[in-house]
Amino acid sequence: MSDIQERVVVTEVGMRDGLQSIARTMPTEFKRRWIDAAYAAGVRHMEVASFVPAKLLPQMADADEVIAHALTYDDLIVTALVPNLKGAQRALASGVHRIVAPISVSTAHSLANVRKTPAEMIESFAAMRALIDSAASERASASAGARRVELIAGLSTVFGCTLQGAVPYADIAAIARAALQAGADVIALGDTTGEATPRQVGEIIELVREVAGHKLRSLHFHDTRGLGLANTLIALQHGIREFDASLAGLGGCPHAPGATGNVNTEDLVFMLDSMGYETGIDLAGLIASRDVLAKALPGEPLYGYLARAGLPKQFSATAQRQRIEPSESQVLQ
Amino acid sequence: MSDIQERVVVTEVGMRDGLQSIARTMPTEFKRRWIDAAYAAGVRHMEVASFVPAKLLPQMADADEVIAHALTYDDLIVTALVPNLKGAQRALASGVHRIVAPISVSTAHSLANVRKTPAEMIESFAAMRALIDSAASERASASAGARRVELIAGLSTVFGCTLQGAVPYADIAAIARAALQAGADVIALGDTTGEATPRQVGEIIELVREVAGHKLRSLHFHDTRGLGLANTLIALQHGIREFDASLAGLGGCPHAPGATGNVNTEDLVFMLDSMGYETGIDLAGLIASRDVLAKALPGEPLYGYLARAGLPKQFSATAQRQRIEPSESQVLQ
Repeated sequence: MSDIQERVVVTEVGMRDGLQSIARTMPTEFKRRWIDAAYAAGVRHMEVASFVPAKLLPQMADADEVIAHALTYDDLIVTALVPNLKGAQRALASGVHRIVAPISVSTAHSLANVRKTPAEMIESFAAMRALIDSAASERASASAGARRVELIAGLSTVFGCTLQGAVPYADIAAIARAALQAGADVIALGDTTGEATPRQVGEIIELVREVAGHKLRSLHFHDTRGLGLANTLIALQHGIREFDASLAGLGGCPHAPGATGNVNTEDLVFMLDSMGYETGIDLAGLIASRDVLAKALPGEPLYGYLARAGLPKQFSATAQRQRIEPSESQVLQ
Repeated sequence: MSDIQERVVVTEVGMRDGLQSIARTMPTEFKRRWIDAAYAAGVRHMEVASFVPAKLLPQMADADEVIAHALTYDDLIVTALVPNLKGAQRALASGVHRIVAPISVSTAHSLANVRKTPAEMIESFAAMRALIDSAASERASASAGARRVELIAGLSTVFGCTLQGAVPYADIAAIARAALQAGADVIALGDTTGEATPRQVGEIIELVREVAGHKLRSLHFHDTRGLGLANTLIALQHGIREFDASLAGLGGCPHAPGATGNVNTEDLVFMLDSMGYETGIDLAGLIASRDVLAKALPGEPLYGYLARAGLPKQFSATAQRQRIEPSESQVLQ
């Protein structure tokens, strides 16, 4: 192992993907506490809200307040999910740093989810791009130091679709190309339905990288079939260094049909730590932050292997490194 | 993907490792039915019993009967776990094809588990070797076609120990070397305490392969910290083609402190299938075989992602292969 640790970005998406997938609405005060606890544990990337009509997703009605709180931390990168131009206007006004716009590769899923075809979503994406650029040029004349808002094309149902079944590789490449032409700063790939498998993950990353190069940046796995961390491992091997995850696997029951929980943040950070990647996140602090969820959502199942089994006795950054070095064997003396 | 599928051996160890880790004893008749159901699903390698004193492990008191039933299937490879010479005598008499003798790399674990040091276990292992060889030469004079019993050194606590903490790599290499000198046909590596992590798995496989070459054959992971399949993936990349697993993850609760369940057979086979490996195991049959456990052990938790979420719509050997081929994109037409 090299002495220089490679950095991996873990984006906590539980406040958005997790909370919008459960029936209850978390009170705003608890969302603030969750952000505080995650920040205290070292998390510096969070997707904290989505801008969708409150009648569709009451869980996200307090998006502005939650984002305003997140923005009180200077070095926290704050992301919001935005499905349309109206949402993009609200997101821009809120001051977020990153906007993720979902674009389904499956036409069936796209129609069911946003009542638009993928081609129509690309048009909407291009309009968001124009809006962001025009807002940026206004800001540039007002203040030279303003940070440019990053527009991420969040390709969804990339690894399979519960409605359509298999998603042709050619469709994935076509949507990625169209999103880039429409002005995407970044391409993210989402396993919306928890169907991704390791060999496929490697193939699709290479496929999209041919189209998008370094603009292919992040992966979003669900752990529906227990392969979330195995898929992450393959993505790491294919050069991906940014992953979404949810504290306590919030947002879906891995033990029920149709489960759709994100990869568990604690288990992901444990794996990354054990492999020598630097996340900046303190595992003990992260596990302690589950208390906010337990208090805010009593009775809601909290998942995760590490939180229940605990860290292995041998496990600390020091022990991991020491173990790499050959030592004198005492065992057969 | 090549048209020739590489074969991976999955050994069902639930009848041994799973059943000896739960409090209740499964009636012999249900063990027979489990073997029947696993065989019907295509499983051709099973570790069905251990030869330990019945007062220590009443769950294994019917080892002879269970093995006799397993041996009614001509093409089923039957394994028993054996901790000492007495057990080896019983195992030989039973007619099993493979004997696994556990040898802890951690002295603390070895003393706690079998009240012997690793060096003493190696001596015991050498005595088993002599016993097997002498039985083989007797059999050879009686019947020329008799199959030679394979003696496997099952190195345990290889990836960490709950008592000792980190296990020095030099100790692992020393024990592997000693086991080979004592006559091991095969070296297997066990993550007894569920502490293995992906980078470590790759390093230890390479380390032991330097000592054991092709005699390093199989890996035994527990899923205590959710990394069982990620670790399997790394082992596959390092050339391992044989893995232990338990139906329904029997033998430990992944959601309780100290959980020690084996990797789940169904989830493992799903991952292997999805990657184009040939296991000979039918997933639907495997999932159906969980019924035997549900009936035999009412109330016992049965784990596994796939059994609960179901196969993805896209998933069949055909669909997986088709998806590899580029297709004409229709999505933006």
